[in-house]
This record gives sequence, C-alpha cells and structure tokens, in this order.
Amino acid sequence: MSENKIPYKIYLDESEIPEAWYNVRADMKNKPAPLLNPGTGKPMTAEELGAVFCDELVAQELDNDTAYIPIPEEIRNFYKMYRPAPLVRAYCLEKALGTPAKIYYKFEGNNTSGSHKLNSAIAQAYYAKKQGLKGVTTETGAGQWGTALSMACAYLGLDCKVFMVKVSYEQKPFRREVMRTYGASVTPSPSNTTNVGRKILEEFPGTTGSLGCAISEAVEVAVSNPGYRYVLGSVLNQVLLHQSVIGLEAKAALDNYGVKPDIIIGCAGGGSNLGGLISPFMGEKLRGENDYRIIAVEPASCPSFTRGTFAYDFCDTGMICPLAKMYTLGSSFIPSANHAGGLRFHGMSSTLSQLYHDGYMEATSVEQTSVFEAAEQFARIEGILPAPESSHAIRVAIDEALKCKETGEEKNILFGLTGTGYFDLVAYQKYNDGEMSDYIPTDDEIAASIAKLPKV
Amino acid sequence: MSENKIPYKIYLDESEIPEAWYNVRADMKNKPAPLLNPGTGKPMTAEELGAVFCDELVAQELDNDTAYIPIPEEIRNFYKMYRPAPLVRAYCLEKALGTPAKIYYKFEGNNTSGSHKLNSAIAQAYYAKKQGLKGVTTETGAGQWGTALSMACAYLGLDCKVFMVKVSYEQKPFRREVMRTYGASVTPSPSNTTNVGRKILEEFPGTTGSLGCAISEAVEVAVSNPGYRYVLGSVLNQVLLHQSVIGLEAKAALDNYGVKPDIIIGCAGGGSNLGGLISPFMGEKLRGENDYRIIAVEPASCPSFTRGTFAYDFCDTGMICPLAKMYTLGSSFIPSANHAGGLRFHGMSSTLSQLYHDGYMEATSVEQTSVFEAAEQFARIEGILPAPESSHAIRVAIDEALKCKETGEEKNILFGLTGTGYFDLVAYQKYNDGEMSDYIPTDDEIAASIAKLPKV
Repeated sequence: MSENKIPYKIYLDESEIPEAWYNVRADMKNKPAPLLNPGTGKPMTAEELGAVFCDELVAQELDNDTAYIPIPEEIRNFYKMYRPAPLVRAYCLEKALGTPAKIYYKFEGNNTSGSHKLNSAIAQAYYAKKQGLKGVTTETGAGQWGTALSMACAYLGLDCKVFMVKVSYEQKPFRREVMRTYGASVTPSPSNTTNVGRKILEEFPGTTGSLGCAISEAVEVAVSNPGYRYVLGSVLNQVLLHQSVIGLEAKAALDNYGVKPDIIIGCAGGGSNLGGLISPFMGEKLRGENDYRIIAVEPASCPSFTRGTFAYDFCDTGMICPLAKMYTLGSSFIPSANHAGGLRFHGMSSTLSQLYHDGYMEATSVEQTSVFEAAEQFARIEGILPAPESSHAIRVAIDEALKCKETGEEKNILFGLTGTGYFDLVAYQKYNDGEMSDYIPTDDEIAASIAKLPKV
Repeated sequence: MSENKIPYKIYLDESEIPEAWYNVRADMKNKPAPLLNPGTGKPMTAEELGAVFCDELVAQELDNDTAYIPIPEEIRNFYKMYRPAPLVRAYCLEKALGTPAKIYYKFEGNNTSGSHKLNSAIAQAYYAKKQGLKGVTTETGAGQWGTALSMACAYLGLDCKVFMVKVSYEQKPFRREVMRTYGASVTPSPSNTTNVGRKILEEFPGTTGSLGCAISEAVEVAVSNPGYRYVLGSVLNQVLLHQSVIGLEAKAALDNYGVKPDIIIGCAGGGSNLGGLISPFMGEKLRGENDYRIIAVEPASCPSFTRGTFAYDFCDTGMICPLAKMYTLGSSFIPSANHAGGLRFHGMSSTLSQLYHDGYMEATSVEQTSVFEAAEQFARIEGILPAPESSHAIRVAIDEALKCKETGEEKNILFGLTGTGYFDLVAYQKYNDGEMSDYIPTDDEIAASIAKLPKV
C-alpha cells in the first residue's frame, strides 16, 4: 500500500491479535541475570518462586529460551474486548510541529484501566485461576495496575486484594472507587493488617507509605494465606513477555503499510511498557536483521538508567523480595513527588537493564514541567489527554520530530502512548496553575542510597 | 458474512465515516414545531436566531426538508481522530445473562471528552470559526459537553467560555481542569459577570446554580460580545443532525454483517444521543421501509417523556431563550440530585417529542439504584465503566435481554453507550457504600411546575 493511504488510526483485524507472546530473552546473547535468594545469595529456584507466584508464571519468569509462548484462548478472548489497540498516525501533531518526520503512536489507553497494564493483569489472573487459586494480592501506586488487576479478577471471578500507597489512597479516591466497583478490596498501605505494615507504622507513625512498602505487605498476605499468590505489574520478565502484544501489534500495523520506524521511544518506570513496545523490534536488532534507534525516557527525578548503577538490589523496601540485577538508584532511594507515579520506582527491569548495559538502547531523562508542556500540546492537537507517564515519551518524540525539522529528515518516529490522564487531573491542575516544580536529585543523594545496596 | 463471524468490536474503515449527516426531519410528516419568540409568540426568524447562533447552524436548525447535509472535510478530519466509533457485540454480557438475545452497543466514549458530545461540538465550533468569530460560549452541567467543546475549540484556535453549574464546578474539579487544559475559561454559575447571574445571586445568595441558569448566562455573554455566539450540546435540531453520525455508523456496521436490530434503546436527557442513534432507523420506519421498536430511557427523577406534557416551554430558567414545543416538566421543575447530570433537563428535543407524540417510539423511566446495579454488572462483564447517563440504556437493554431469556426469542438489541464514567466516581462511591437513594417526584410537584408553563 502506498504511504499516503495510511489512515489516522490503523486498526488490525481481530484475527490479527497475536497468537503468541514474544520472549525477547530468547534472542539475547547475554541473558538477564537471575533473581537471587537474599538469604542464600543463590538463584531463586522454581520451587522458591512458587511460594510467591503462580506456577505457570514462574515458568515464564525463568524461561530464557522459548521465543514464542502461545497466548491461551481465554486471554485472547479478553484481549478482544479492548484490543487490537490502535496505532495512530499523528497527522495533526506533525502538521502543528511543521516537521517532515512521520509520527506514530501505539495507544494503549482505550480501556477502563486507562493503560497497557491490563495486558499483563489478565494473563496473571488467568494463570492464578487456572491453578485453582482463590485470589491474588498486589500493590498499586498511581492506581493503573490495581485497576487493571481488579478488572481482570472481576472477569474471572477471582478475589483481588490491593494494597494502595496511603498517599494515593487518600489523594486518588476515584481510582480507589473504580477498583471497588470491580469488586477489589483496597487497603491503604502501610496498614495494621500485616506484620511488615505494623512494623513500619510503629517506626514511622505518620508515614504516607511507599510502593516498596506496599509490595512488602502484598507479598506477606500472599504467602501467608492459602490459595493466594502475589502478582506484580512491571519489572518482571513475565510482565515484559505479556506486554509484547503492544510491540507485536504495532509492528504488524506498520508492516501492513510497509513502514519501518527509525526511532522507537517509550517511557520507562519498571519497564513494562517500554519492554513490551520494543520487543519485536529489539528481536530483529539482536538477530542482526534490522537496526532501530531505541530510546528509554525516564523522569529526571528518578533516573535509574541515566544515573543509577547496574547491580543486584531489592525490589521492595521491606527487603523480603528476591534480589534483581538491574539499573537501580538503591531501594532506599526516595524519589521526589513527581506526578508520574508509575515512573517512581528505584529500579528497572532486569531484561531492559541488560539490553541497555549491552548498548542496544539509549536512555534520556526529562523534567516534569517540560513533560506537562508536551502533554498539554499533545492533548490540544491530538485530542487525547495523556497520562503523565506516557507524556515522557511524547516529550522526546516531539523533540526528535523538531530535530528532523532542522535537518529536513523524514524519519519515522514510533512512541508508546501508554495511557490516559483522566485520574491525574490534580497534576494537570498544578501545571495549569503554574505551581509545578522540578526536582533533580543531587549526586550525593544518589550516592548515599547506592552505598546501601546489598552485598552479593 | 455469516453471523458467527461477527467480531467483538466492529470497526468501520476510516473511509466509511459518513460523508453527510442525516436529517430525520426530512422524512417526518409532522415536522417538529418551530421555536417561538417569547415576546411576539411568532416563529423565530433566521435573523433573530442569528444573533444567538452561527448563521450556518441557524440554517441547519430551520431546515426541515434536506435529508442529507454534507459533512465538511475539516470536520471529517477531526472525526478521524476518534471515529469510526466501535459497534461492540456484547458476547460476554450475553453469556453472563444466559440470554438468546444478541446485544450490540455503539460505544461513543473512546475520546477524551468521554462521550458522544464531541460529534456536535466540533461541528458547531467549525461553523463559528468559518464565520470568522472569535469564540463561543456555552454552559455545562455534568461537564461532558463543556469538555467536548473546549477540545473542539482548542483544535480550531477558538476562544471558549464555559459557564459551569456551581455545584458541579466545586464537586467536579477534575472536569474543570480538563477544560482548562484545553484552554477554556470556566466560570462557576451563577456568576457576577452577567446581569442575569447578578440578579439570581441577589435573589438567591446561596444558590449552587442550575443548568437553566447557566444557559441564561452563556446566552447573555454571547449576544453582548461582538464576535461570539452561543452553542448548545443537546435539544436543538442541529445537534440531532450532527449526532446522526452515531446511528449512521451503527447501521453501516450492522448492515455489513446483515444484522437488523429488533429493539433500539437510548438514554434520553435533551435527546442528543437518542436522536443521533435512532435517526437512520427512524428514517426507514417513517418511510415505511422497516420497523423497529425504539425505546427512550429517562430517569424516574426527571421523567419528561413519561410524565411531562407536550407544550411550548422555555429551555432556560432565565426565560431569555426561545420557546420550544416539547415534552416538558416545566422550566421551573427542579429535578432531584440524580447522579446522571446529563439527564437532568426539564424538557426534550422537539424532534423527538414530535416522534414520540406521533407514536414512533416508546419511553420508559428507571430508578437510579437499579441503573447503578446495571452499570456495575456491565463494568465487570464488559470491561467498560459506563457513564451514569449511558447506564440507563444498559438497564433497559439487560431487562429486554432477560425477557428474551424467558421467551426464548433471539432478538437483536442495539443500545447506545454514550460515554464513560471516569468523572462520575463520586456517584459510584455512593453506590459502593450503599448510600444511593431514589427519588420520584410526586404528581403534585409535576403539576405545579407544568401549571407555570408560558401561555402561547
């Protein structure tokens, strides 16, 4: 097909929903380092992981070899309710920028959870159901993951216990109500319902909680209640695997029109969206079939790729989870109150960390006022109010498109629009009122938390 | 195509976006009664209407004869950003209900305004821009219309002044912020920026406002500022015309699969969604080509069709707007605080009122707790959190599907899912907490406000 026939939105046919997830690890020469048992310092076994995660998800977590893992029919049926997600050609944005670049974005926000998180939530809930479990536990910060999981559990008739960082629980009552509408129980964390929660409350009575602390509580409830397992919305290999549907669909849509992206851009918190979006492209790059420039965008307030170190670290503050080798700012690093809650995590997916370490992708960090400038511009021109997280990618996509304007290059830019900002209006209000500020951690701050990394 | 190949979501091709709106008035034997000048009691002339509305919109308002009015290229390009909207086959809901009925819904919530309102907002803003105006004024209650209009104005570079019912302004700060992000000025109504606002504030110092009062303020600002006109999101003939894209797309999608709906259901406030959804079907019914059972669903708290009277009445409480002949509860009727703000209007589209009066459609009213029951059920099964307004249609669609279960009939049910409930979580919270109540006005209350109808 000729390129001028590309529609505003490229929808794949329902039959083009991928039949298998793509596991990028299969094509990596240097595999991501294994999770370690913090007690023994040895790689976690399937049995040890099985106390926390569902069996089939453990298998996926440990499988560095199988390139394609079939998506069960039941999950594909759920996907059909909101997928294929559109690949949008940003004609209006291109025109407004006056750029010769061609901008595409894969929009994952057209579902009630408002983000791509649903892609992994339904997979994890499905395997829990299949294992005959009663329910799952998790934590949520910004609330996107918790919402997605509650939707998946409602669909399958699974119990869903969400520990929501207390400050979000109080400041985002609407997110909480969506989860309750989907039948989840939502507990502000730290809570007095767990040992780790009670301990933290004793030590820090006025604390408003943190993601790391909520993880600890959710894991404790999972391992101490028969019939429950813990699920996590990012960082893990299994999550990147499920999220590969984003990239597979995006690539299929571009392939249908003979378009090859020159630059692929995604925001990066724990890596779920970025890892999913880039996976099939990265596969081609790893196999030497094609080259792509791949850019991870992180907030300047929480710059794990650009200013962290590549080492083993805890994923949670309670230090009860396995150790993961990743780019990290240290699990004791406390990011400033950036409004992109989904990007406020001290570490990064082991898979993406390895790829970044091996030079297969770049990373850059951006400040939040410039991110909201891009968000507002995008909203007015493209008609979608983006999530603050997604807007990190928008910022860099616009910057790259403007560079093309300088050079006259007609590059194809693809970025991931992970979700919508309907529940982030407090942040937009701050921006609209001119009250948004930027905070960049000092070298000393980062050095201090990195100094506390566990010795392995 | 055989029916078992119907996908979950039927997306039309971009080229199938309608090229013309369908004007159902052209096929009506009894035309809707004209708007009257409240001063003279005579039909409003184009010139009189031109002081309030854009010229081309006045022409559309008065045109009872032209069946198809071309959609300008610029509006179609805007439509391409979020249309064609999907027609969804509710496989999951059918299965959960165990009904032999086949349920379809036209989903209009996949855009940042969260509803179908954008279809008319972009049209009205476009004609204002084309006339060389500086901006437009409007009112908003629930906020969907104001959001849609601010999006359309941002896209076209038009100024947008929104008067937002004070109680909504205070209780829905997020809606306000979306509009501000799109560059609109949002004023709580009643305000001291208008004569009518000051008068109302003097009389009722503590008032939290009403839609009728916000309309009066917006009209005053439009007629007293050169380069401004007033726009309205429902009730008017022109709005039903623009909203016909809903029905045209829904019909095209069903036709592509050879499906003829037996029952068509839409919620009805001022009539914009219902009128748009049913228009091409109603056209066939009026021309005697096909028969459809068409059901308008209204809240029991504001039952203009089912308990109102068919008479001339004011559309606003300030009584500065023209008189419209419609089913009305009287412009002094104050509906109880039902959470479906978009359905809290005392009157109904003149076009729909005439069709109802002539027996071409039915109407029914439902109570809000049963509406939220349906909303929750739908959210959990179909994965979309519906707006309270839309959920009125869901309630009746489920009831009709359950009747089919009793009788074994495989009816095709089509309903309009006008929007999402992301900004209605206060209402969902009330429902989740078991604190939602129903209020049905007494016969005396309705009789009292109908007794105050203007004499014409």
